[in-house]
Parts: sequence; C-alpha cells; structure tokens
Amino acid sequence: MEHNIECIEIGRQLGSTDLTVWVGDGTNFPGQQDFTRSLDRYLDAAADIYAALPDDWRMLLEHKMFEPAFYSSVISDWGSSILAAQELGPRAKCLVDLGHHAPNVNIEQIVARLHRFGKLGGFHFNDSKYGDDDLDSGSINPHQLFLVFNELAEAEAHPRANEPEGGFNPSYMIDQSHNVTDPIESMLSSAEAIAQCYAKASLVDRAALHGAQEANDTMMAFQALRRAYNIDVAPILARARVEAGGAYDVLAVYRASQWRDRKAQERKAVGLGAGIV
Amino acid sequence: MEHNIECIEIGRQLGSTDLTVWVGDGTNFPGQQDFTRSLDRYLDAAADIYAALPDDWRMLLEHKMFEPAFYSSVISDWGSSILAAQELGPRAKCLVDLGHHAPNVNIEQIVARLHRFGKLGGFHFNDSKYGDDDLDSGSINPHQLFLVFNELAEAEAHPRANEPEGGFNPSYMIDQSHNVTDPIESMLSSAEAIAQCYAKASLVDRAALHGAQEANDTMMAFQALRRAYNIDVAPILARARVEAGGAYDVLAVYRASQWRDRKAQERKAVGLGAGIV
Amino acid sequence: MEHNIECIEIGRQLGSTDLTVWVGDGTNFPGQQDFTRSLDRYLDAAADIYAALPDDWRMLLEHKMFEPAFYSSVISDWGSSILAAQELGPRAKCLVDLGHHAPNVNIEQIVARLHRFGKLGGFHFNDSKYGDDDLDSGSINPHQLFLVFNELAEAEAHPRANEPEGGFNPSYMIDQSHNVTDPIESMLSSAEAIAQCYAKASLVDRAALHGAQEANDTMMAFQALRRAYNIDVAPILARARVEAGGAYDVLAVYRASQWRDRKAQERKAVGLGAGIV
Amino acid sequence: MEHNIECIEIGRQLGSTDLTVWVGDGTNFPGQQDFTRSLDRYLDAAADIYAALPDDWRMLLEHKMFEPAFYSSVISDWGSSILAAQELGPRAKCLVDLGHHAPNVNIEQIVARLHRFGKLGGFHFNDSKYGDDDLDSGSINPHQLFLVFNELAEAEAHPRANEPEGGFNPSYMIDQSHNVTDPIESMLSSAEAIAQCYAKASLVDRAALHGAQEANDTMMAFQALRRAYNIDVAPILARARVEAGGAYDVLAVYRASQWRDRKAQERKAVGLGAGIV
Repeated sequence: MEHNIECIEIGRQLGSTDLTVWVGDGTNFPGQQDFTRSLDRYLDAAADIYAALPDDWRMLLEHKMFEPAFYSSVISDWGSSILAAQELGPRAKCLVDLGHHAPNVNIEQIVARLHRFGKLGGFHFNDSKYGDDDLDSGSINPHQLFLVFNELAEAEAHPRANEPEGGFNPSYMIDQSHNVTDPIESMLSSAEAIAQCYAKASLVDRAALHGAQEANDTMMAFQALRRAYNIDVAPILARARVEAGGAYDVLAVYRASQWRDRKAQERKAVGLGAGIV
Repeated sequence: MEHNIECIEIGRQLGSTDLTVWVGDGTNFPGQQDFTRSLDRYLDAAADIYAALPDDWRMLLEHKMFEPAFYSSVISDWGSSILAAQELGPRAKCLVDLGHHAPNVNIEQIVARLHRFGKLGGFHFNDSKYGDDDLDSGSINPHQLFLVFNELAEAEAHPRANEPEGGFNPSYMIDQSHNVTDPIESMLSSAEAIAQCYAKASLVDRAALHGAQEANDTMMAFQALRRAYNIDVAPILARARVEAGGAYDVLAVYRASQWRDRKAQERKAVGLGAGIV
Repeated sequence: MEHNIECIEIGRQLGSTDLTVWVGDGTNFPGQQDFTRSLDRYLDAAADIYAALPDDWRMLLEHKMFEPAFYSSVISDWGSSILAAQELGPRAKCLVDLGHHAPNVNIEQIVARLHRFGKLGGFHFNDSKYGDDDLDSGSINPHQLFLVFNELAEAEAHPRANEPEGGFNPSYMIDQSHNVTDPIESMLSSAEAIAQCYAKASLVDRAALHGAQEANDTMMAFQALRRAYNIDVAPILARARVEAGGAYDVLAVYRASQWRDRKAQERKAVGLGAGIV
Repeated sequence: MEHNIECIEIGRQLGSTDLTVWVGDGTNFPGQQDFTRSLDRYLDAAADIYAALPDDWRMLLEHKMFEPAFYSSVISDWGSSILAAQELGPRAKCLVDLGHHAPNVNIEQIVARLHRFGKLGGFHFNDSKYGDDDLDSGSINPHQLFLVFNELAEAEAHPRANEPEGGFNPSYMIDQSHNVTDPIESMLSSAEAIAQCYAKASLVDRAALHGAQEANDTMMAFQALRRAYNIDVAPILARARVEAGGAYDVLAVYRASQWRDRKAQERKAVGLGAGIV
C-alpha cells in the first residue's frame, strides 16, 4: 500500500492519470491460504489505495493466471478483476495483459465483456504462446491482436451509454521482455505491429459487418474481417510516419544511426556501463 | 424462452425449485456475431425467463467454455456467468460444471469466488481431462474434487453475511455421459466418489488449517488437507450405507441382483427394446 | 482391418495412392486398457493393413489427442505416430491434422520434426481454438498456417537426403466441419486461405532468412517472415485464377450463380430432398 | 559440451552412472532459428557428449515444452526426446519431468510409451498446475502420480523383451523449487507422497486388473485402481520407517529437532549466513 501511494505521488509529478496495480499474491499449495480471506485482504488494501487516488485518476487492476504463485493467484482472471473493480468504485477499471490468460481463452471476448460492463481500463500489449511470455506484439498470433483491435474500433464507433466522461479511452501500454533482441528494435517492431492491427481494424467495413451479422450471413460477416486483415497496411503507415517527420523503415534507420553504439560509448565514458535497456 | 417457461411448469408439478439454464449460443467464426449485442440478447431472454420464475425458485446459469460453438460462447466462463446473474437479480445464481473450464484453471478458487460474491448456486459433478468429457466423478482428478468439497465444507462452517435465507445450500447434480460402462454402475461409483470427497472434506481439522494459515505456516496448512485426503473413508461410508438399509459393496450387490438383465427382459416383453439408459 | 482393406480396393479404382488410418481407439477410465498391450494390438492390426498396401501407396497415420476417447487415445500425439510409422515400414508416414494437438503446442515444429525424420506424409487442414474444432482454414490463427507453410516451402527448397523417390510430396487435404455456413462457400474460402499462406511462404526471402539465422540476427530473421506474411497476396491469386479460367471473386461468383438453389430444385424434383452437403 | 564432459568427470568421482542433459536451447521468435538445423546442431553436440560417456553410464535426455525459450524449444516433447535418443544410441534414454508437458497431456501414457520403446530412463518428480511449476510431489494431482507409478509397477511386473541388462531400473529424482516452505520439510513431505504412490501402485491387484481389462469390464478394471488408490498407506509406511530406524512422523520429528535453527546458528558462527537451502 505504501509503495502504491508513493507511486501516485511520483505519477502526479510526471503527469500520470492511471495507476496500474498488479499483485503477485497467491499460493503454491492447496490450503496455504483461504481463498476468500485472501481476497478480502486484497480488497481492504486496494480500497486504501483507491482512497488515495486523485479524483481524475483511474486505478487499473491487472489480473494474471499464475506466476509467481503456482497454485492460486488472488486476481487470477478477469472475473475476479471485474468483481474487485466493482467493489472498489467507478474509477477502478480492469487492465488486460494479453499473456495472462488460461490456454485457449478468447481474449477479444473478454475485452468486449469488460467494455460491456463499463470496466475496460487498458492493455499491456505483448504476445505469448505458453504463458506470460512477454514476446513482441504480433510475433505469435497477429490475428488475435487484430481481433482485439476490432473490439476497440467497435467500441469507439459505438460508445456504451455508461461510458465515463471523456468517452472510451483505455490506456495502451507495451509490457514485453526482450531477451534475444535489442529492446529498442523490439519496441519499434512491436509498435509497428500494433499500429498495423489498429489500422486494419479501422478499415473493417462496419456497415457490411453489421449487416451480415444481423442477416445471420456468417460467411460474409467473417469475410468483412478477413478482407481488412489481409490488407497490407505497412505502406500507408510508413507514409504517415514520413509525413509526421519519422522514418519510412524504422528498423533500417535505427540500425544505420548506430544510436545504440553511440549511447554505449557515451555512457561508458561517464561510468554507466555498456548496458542500455 | 418458451421451452424454459414450459420447464418451469413441469418442474412445478415435480416439486423442483431450481431451473438450470445453459444455452449453447455462440459462434464458429470471428465476426459471426457481435459479442456485446449477443450478450444483450441473452440477457433480454434470460430476464423474461427470470420473470416467470416462482418466488421460491432459483435460476442457475451454467457457463461452458466451448462446444457446440467453437470460436466463442455467450456464457463461456464464470465471469460472464456472475455478471449475468448480477443483472438478472438475487435469485439468479451460477452453476459450476467441473468440465466447462479452460485448461489449468483453478476451479476450487472459482467456487470460493462465487460463494464470496453470493452467487454459488450449484454443481454438475463429473470429471474431465481435455474438455467437457463428462467422465465419472473422481476418475481423473479426485484431489480436485476433494478441494472443491473443501471449499463447500468451509462455506458451511463459515456462512457469509450475504447468505440467502435458508443458508448455504447449493444444488448438487451429476452430469456425466457413460459410453463404456453400465450407466447405473457409473452412477453408483460416481456417487461413492463424491461422498468420499465430502467425507474427507468434513474430516479436515479446520482449526489446525486456519491456525496454520494465519501463522503463515504453509507446510502445516497443506498437511491439514493432506491428512484428511489420505484417510480411507470407504469403510465408514459403507457402514453408513448399511445402517441406512443400503449395500456394503454397491457394485457387487448391483451385479449380483442382475437388475439390468431382468429389466431388459421385462422391457423386451412389453416391446421397449433391450436398451436401458 | 477389413474396412481398411476394402478402402484400398475402392481407392485402387479411384486412382488413390494414399490410405489415411485414424482409429478412435482409447479409453475413458484409467485402467480400462493397458497402454502397451493396446498399442501392440494397434500395431498388429496396422501391420496387416500395411501388408495389403499396393507398392506405390503410402499409409498415413493420423494422431489425435482426444475424442471420442477422453482419458487416453492409442495414437494421441506425433510421438506415438512416428514410432508406429517406424515399426510399420518406409511407406508408413504421419499425417498432421492441425486441430489434433494439446493446447499451446508448436505445430510447425512438429511438421519440421516429421520431415527431419523422413515421416511427413500429409495434412488435414482446418483451424481450431479449443480442440478438434474443424473450423475453416485460417479463420482463427492464419499466422500459424503460414508458419506451417513456411516449413513446407523450406522443405521444398532443401530436400533431405532421406527424401523418398519422387521427392518431397506430402498429401494436402481439407478436413473441416461446416455447421453455420454453406459448406461449398467454406471450401472456397478455406482453399483461398490455404493458397494465400502458401503464396506468402513462397515469397519469404530465404537467403535473407538464412543469413539472419546464421548471423544470429533474430530481429531480421523474424522480419523476413513478417514481411512475407504482411503481403496482400489476394490480388495475385485472383489474377492467377482468372488466367486459369476461374473466378476473380469466388464467393461472389458462386452466390451469383445460384448453384445451390438450382441443385436443390433439381434434387427435390428427383426426390433427393433439399439438403446439399 | 565441455560442461557436460566435466560433469561426467565429477560424476565418476561421486559414483554416478547417469548424466542428465537438459538444454534450454530454443527461440522466442518464429524464424529465429531453423527447426531442423537447430536439432542437427543439438544432435551433433549430444553425440560428442555420448561418446565421452563411460560404458556403464546412461545419458538421460530431458525434454521441456517451454522456458527459458518461449516460442520453440529444441527438445520440447517426448517425441523429439525419443527420436534423439534413438539416434544417439542404446545408452541414451529419456527422462520425464512431470511439469514439462503441454496442458492436459496424459503423462502416464508417455511413461508407458517410453518403456514400450525401450527408452524410459528416469524421472524428475514434482507437481504442477500451469507449467514447470516445480511444486511438491503430490500436492496438486496425487492421482496422476499414482497412475505414473502404476505404469512403473506394471513395468516391474512385466519387463519387456528389450529390457537392458540389469532389468527395468529408471532413475528417480526429485526436481522441485521450494519458495514458501522450508526446503527440507518439502523434501520430507514429497518423499512421503512419492512413497505412498509407489506403495499404492504395489497394492493394485494386477490379476484382477488384467482380468477385467481382457474381459473388457471397464468398471472393474477402474475399480482395481481405485481400490488401491483409496488405501491409506501412511500407517504402513510409518511403521516401515520406524523399523528402519526412522521417524514415525517425519515433519514433527524434524521440527522438534530444531535442526534448521541449530545449523543456522553454527553457520552464522562461521560466517556462512543464516540461509540454509
């Protein structure tokens, strides 16, 4: 609790308006804790943090199936997360990390559910194959990322009656772990993958999609998504970057700039070591 | 809706007080339906059924991850189920079928969560290894069944403040599919396995368990469960059956009775065929 | 065995050269069968079928994790499949159905392994989210399908020393179940998705990919795949179809043709009912 | 390779006769490595280690689905493991770590398969719910552990024709990670759980089991296992420990001995710190 309240103070100075709370509390053995008393303790502590939240901030509750606890986790799924957010109050929302779910789970449906019940707060983007793998966005299952953005584009197009003031505005974050690549390159590549999925979702012909859905024309509803997904949006995104003063080929420009090597030299010179992460 | 309202009428004549609602609605393709409008339609229909419910009945919402729909199901997990039950009203509760969850999910924690939020309505007991396998109770993972009953024994011992009138009383049902055994034998064997888990859960030294939990003595908390789980309760259950006029060895008595063969003969005589299921 | 030998006879008349053998043998209870004796019986029976195989045929062994058996299946994974194929002989190969694996499994690696050990025989293409869902190819995870084809393109480009006479030539089949769409439309859409993945895999710059792999330049190796995956190959495939006398937009042409309605009328006229599947 | 060859040298001095080889090699991105060339490199290196193996040693290959690599692992499953062991030679065997499999996989069947094909080398005992959790044996799914031991008891009772000299003798190891308990207590508790499963498996009436299996009497085959599993073998194991000069209640005696506190004092006195792991 103290740590979170300190984070709020730091965030205030940085201009933040969200506090993400993930706790690793859980158990490694059946019986280690009582599930209910453990949740009650979480809720008590979370309420104290919530009370310290500035009026224009949101508290984002992050669920995770397992790790570091390997038998149970106090906020292990979106069900526990949304019930906790309901108890805490209107400024408590749920955060979806794409790698924190059970195998086979339909994450885009969870996104839609959280939005339906007024509790979609934000995302930790990454990709995963086995668990909380924190791989680069779109590297394993880019279609799933597109389907998540399809829900977001749908939500933007059709805000719910219970949308908070300011409208639909989840917080988008990248939460990845880069062990075998230059982390800056992975961030560039991930940002591009995310932008591509957002662009494709924006290109879905929503009138055609809705028409086919209402007509129960499954094939054409699916084709409306597939057509948008198949579009190669890399050129238009590159053009947009160039118009905004950015690079056409971000990885090539980054590599050519030798930024990493230069920074490593500079930091070595001032005794910071060669590691740039 | 009509079908469910007809079921209520039949149930009234039978003396039922629960209506279980499971719908297989869902999709096989991304885009086939809008997740939110699909849930809204479910909630509208469910509200009409709820309105037709006698005052002393409960409506049990059953979730299922997949099948017959293979991309999304409208009530696919306990999160969707409890949010639907909240919208419907106090007599709407959630039903847990042990085979309807994503791989690796901690079902006993879900049971505790549903109880914590006042929505645990009942069970479909069975066992599973891969999905909705509907195998005999306790045949695959009897320890999980024991841990579920441990939550139920805990809930009986410590009712929540929000417990409905009449106290903690979920409905216990068996929902299995017997393809390779005599279904009556499977029911006998399953009932015995369920009774064993309940007996073992009742034998947990709760004072020792709670004491160890509060002292953060993980090993002794776990041992409190293990000690009870290890007890061979078959003899005491057999004795209880005998005292109640039942059989010591139910499968042996059933086989010796040749009940199945006799019934098959009787039914053949009246033209019902040999199949008894 | 008799059934399979009869199938060979029919296949001979049809000009087939592959026999796919999938058996649903397995168990619903621990102890129901001895795992080893059960496999031995499978191998005995399979050897008799193998002996009846014409010299220029292949016998394709299909594995499946579960269903209709829900505790164990005799050929449940590629490990059992390849060991069985090894025992049977050089014309026994393994068939990969994309929906027959445990959750999270890396199927493209299994394809590579089967090829490495000279036993890749063919595919049942489909898509799945939960199990043997038999959904339309590319509808759930088109990236996985592309990665499978990347292995096939790699295998074509670099045949193994132990490649059989005739070179690398797995059999490609579609094995899907169309419940919510017109099956012909689903076949058209699936064939297009498969062709797209093959086209994209063919567009991978293999020299760049191999160069990056050998240089341990993970990011550029991955980008070589991503670049090809992002290309919208729909136009070039449409053009190829038109040049071959086919349709530019296969679904639109099929719908405009009213083929299904006409056939239904014809069949109704001759008493075959309206169902065309 | 150097590290493993050094391990052989150390093992020689310690009297070991097994070398377990687990490599974490794998990838985090599609395309990062070529699956086949990566396996070939593994096999080349493993062959050099195999060549350095003393004549009376075994090389145990350990597979693991994921971690530290999160897209692919070179020896990710028992299929890759046994094919590698076949290529290496007769003294290469496979090691089964209970936590290294895909969700829902039937591990006891894998044990039977490895034995059937002459490659079952040993075990890393532990338990898991989500992945390579390294939890205490029997804490999550003791029935699965019993079913594994049932295969071992079966293998002892019916050695295969291809059993190596010395008969059926896999190596039994515990591989766990104790974060929330005293590791010594966890080892005591785990050893007891393993011994219980072995005792129960030894109590299976194999004649009744085989008879029911051959008669296709599924219910009685299963009951043969259930009867043995239900027996509380804790008393007889305690008696055996006492007769062997050990403790009746190992955890109680260990705690009463205050061994841990005394050792911590001694080590503190010689400057080793208080941590005993």
